[in-house]
Amino acid sequence: MDIQQTEKPWEYLEELIEAKDAARIRSFLDNTNPADTALAISRIDDDLVNNLMILLNPEDAAELIEDLSDTQAAEIMEDLEPSQAAAIFEELDSDHVVDILGEMDKDDANAIISQMNPEDAEEARQFLTYDEDTAGGLMISEFLDYRSNQTVQDVLEDLQNNREEYAEYDVQYIYITDSAGHLEGVLRMRDLLFPQRSTPLSKLMIRNPYKTIVTAPLDELRNFFEEHNLFGAPVVDQDNRLVGIVLPEAVEDAKQKKSVNQFLGLSGIIGGEEFRSMPVAVRAGRRFSWLSLNIFLNIIAASIIALYQDTIAAVIALAVFLPIVSDMSGNSGQQAAAVSMRELTLGLLRPHEFGRVIIKEASVGILNGIGLGLLLGGLVYLWQGNLILGLVIGLALALNTLLSVLVGGLTPLLLKMLKLDPALVTGALITTITDMGGFFLVLSFATIVLDKL
Amino acid sequence: MDIQQTEKPWEYLEELIEAKDAARIRSFLDNTNPADTALAISRIDDDLVNNLMILLNPEDAAELIEDLSDTQAAEIMEDLEPSQAAAIFEELDSDHVVDILGEMDKDDANAIISQMNPEDAEEARQFLTYDEDTAGGLMISEFLDYRSNQTVQDVLEDLQNNREEYAEYDVQYIYITDSAGHLEGVLRMRDLLFPQRSTPLSKLMIRNPYKTIVTAPLDELRNFFEEHNLFGAPVVDQDNRLVGIVLPEAVEDAKQKKSVNQFLGLSGIIGGEEFRSMPVAVRAGRRFSWLSLNIFLNIIAASIIALYQDTIAAVIALAVFLPIVSDMSGNSGQQAAAVSMRELTLGLLRPHEFGRVIIKEASVGILNGIGLGLLLGGLVYLWQGNLILGLVIGLALALNTLLSVLVGGLTPLLLKMLKLDPALVTGALITTITDMGGFFLVLSFATIVLDKL
Repeated sequence: MDIQQTEKPWEYLEELIEAKDAARIRSFLDNTNPADTALAISRIDDDLVNNLMILLNPEDAAELIEDLSDTQAAEIMEDLEPSQAAAIFEELDSDHVVDILGEMDKDDANAIISQMNPEDAEEARQFLTYDEDTAGGLMISEFLDYRSNQTVQDVLEDLQNNREEYAEYDVQYIYITDSAGHLEGVLRMRDLLFPQRSTPLSKLMIRNPYKTIVTAPLDELRNFFEEHNLFGAPVVDQDNRLVGIVLPEAVEDAKQKKSVNQFLGLSGIIGGEEFRSMPVAVRAGRRFSWLSLNIFLNIIAASIIALYQDTIAAVIALAVFLPIVSDMSGNSGQQAAAVSMRELTLGLLRPHEFGRVIIKEASVGILNGIGLGLLLGGLVYLWQGNLILGLVIGLALALNTLLSVLVGGLTPLLLKMLKLDPALVTGALITTITDMGGFFLVLSFATIVLDKL
Repeated sequence: MDIQQTEKPWEYLEELIEAKDAARIRSFLDNTNPADTALAISRIDDDLVNNLMILLNPEDAAELIEDLSDTQAAEIMEDLEPSQAAAIFEELDSDHVVDILGEMDKDDANAIISQMNPEDAEEARQFLTYDEDTAGGLMISEFLDYRSNQTVQDVLEDLQNNREEYAEYDVQYIYITDSAGHLEGVLRMRDLLFPQRSTPLSKLMIRNPYKTIVTAPLDELRNFFEEHNLFGAPVVDQDNRLVGIVLPEAVEDAKQKKSVNQFLGLSGIIGGEEFRSMPVAVRAGRRFSWLSLNIFLNIIAASIIALYQDTIAAVIALAVFLPIVSDMSGNSGQQAAAVSMRELTLGLLRPHEFGRVIIKEASVGILNGIGLGLLLGGLVYLWQGNLILGLVIGLALALNTLLSVLVGGLTPLLLKMLKLDPALVTGALITTITDMGGFFLVLSFATIVLDKL
């Protein structure tokens, strides 16, 4: 069977798993790029994926795991025997192991850790204590360190002797530590090219190198790498002992993950990314929890309408325009919120700068309020042939647009100051407040001029 | 004046610019990290920024430009004399120059290019012809190439002699080309560590190296770097001539930019990122163009309500619940759309897989439709004490939730198949269709049981 000709490569992989054809599976995986591997695995039944992992040796299984997202990998590893999962983890980078363990149920993770060799288990336990978005949570433990009295020749010999192991290391520097592991200096790999081979590292190393502490948060790490154009930074503990290195890619990835989750939250996807390969109960449940919150908020907003039922009874056409004002206000608020969230993420806005947001949004709100008010008011007049109704709707939308951009722009700042995650509630909160404003303005203006409508 | 004590560092910078104190400005910029520099520049008046650029020599100005986003940089460069902008560009990386030129007005860009030295101008013109999201648009022209008959010693001498220039090069490989520039092989820097210095490169180089063609699109480049764990890839033209190298970071950045723009589009921010430092006319105008489209779509949706005015006149309470059904349906649709857009971006879903989305969303839609229908229907019954009204609203929301997740899930696929940018219209389109569905279901059900309401 030719892979090229198969419409769906995962069906071919399924057949291979059912036939327990380990050799062909390996060749399939070798010839499939990581994105397609992840796609194929996401399309195959959980039971078959489990069989697949059992068919592969730990090394090949680890290579497969590397192609998957942490969420996907964690689901698969949870289903394996702990001893088997432990054997696969021992083939993976330390940060990857911790990321996947972090996505798991605590009991499952502990069961696997207890099956790892004592040194790796100790490291995994230690790494799991660090916060996800800190240097400790992002670092890897694979680095090269030497003593300062070793020579260039010593290093080159060690590099030569451990070529295969080090080839996997994604590092551009060697670190110099004392016998207790305290960081003393750093050397770029290329600094080894030119000196005499007998030169001791103490003569070449950069002393007091740039470094970061395990507890350094993501924002600090971003600034660190923006300021110092480095391929990696040593991470030290409180006592200046070298415990790992953090790579700029890991910092970028973490930043992107955070930003994606924020955007997804604004669209009502909370609790991390959702993929359609996840069980339907998980997907429906997470979406429902956000939607049901929205129902209650919507009821609160709609209670404004209930207060004005007499006005609507007198002018039924108002019922046609209430949802328009509600939708439009939500849109304006959402735009302003997206800009605030983005500026906060990029550091172009600070959480306490309410004044700046008010000034900048008010100008947009006034301009667009006038524009939208004239547009909708004009359309209402043309459609219903009622000038006063057009004025009521247009004026209400104009004022509510101003209110909406202010509420939308300020809500993320307020949530950030209260240390709440803006992703979760920004959208729901804005819609509720702007709906209430819109309903109130339309219906109270209409009540005032009711005899002329 | 101590920077640490100043509440707002940009006010200090403004004072320095007004005092024309170039030395202190340089020291301020040297001691400020890039994120804070970008923040400060975004807060300073355009005129003062212009003065600042004139005060700095081209090298320092280029360093400042490197700290800014392309949009921010383009705005500043447009305001400078072309000859001055050209001098600054000559200090920047080629890909950065092209990114900034690409953000500019064409006339402004050409005026600057014509002031650059002929070689750089030719390169900039050539680079600008490449599509932004292709290898040509992402590559840099700074790479090291040698002939295959040169020796390790030749390379080491050249590296030594041009240390300073090459120190700026962000490359881990050297390339071997023939005299006409055709790519013949590649060598990792560290491969130069061990061999005899007299060895010719032809004996060491990896022949037929992995490479990409200038026209390779972003998705292909991502797969390339996921498959081959490289620090950079040579980019060749149709004739296999080496024209640049593309770094995995550039590919990641481009991917992230695309993903951010997509998310922003879903929140109604179109035409690229918006920052509050942009002129109010630009910000208001771009937001307005999206909002005004939404007004027309909203009117279309609301016309359904107009058809049922008699029903509403008979049961005014319906006016209270129409906006709730409209909001909730929009939310459900938005969630499904966000998942589809994310899966498409990550390659976990292909644009033609309508069947998969229908099956996966229908299951969520049925579960959440029942849940939300029961919840809202129950609340309506409790509030209004009218069981039939509760049934009408609950059933309409249940069915419309199913409709909304299907429409929301499928719209991004449909737009992608039609080669339209999902970011621009997904949100607006989904809201319109789901609103129409919701209004129709509520009002037609109500009309059927009108005598019992």
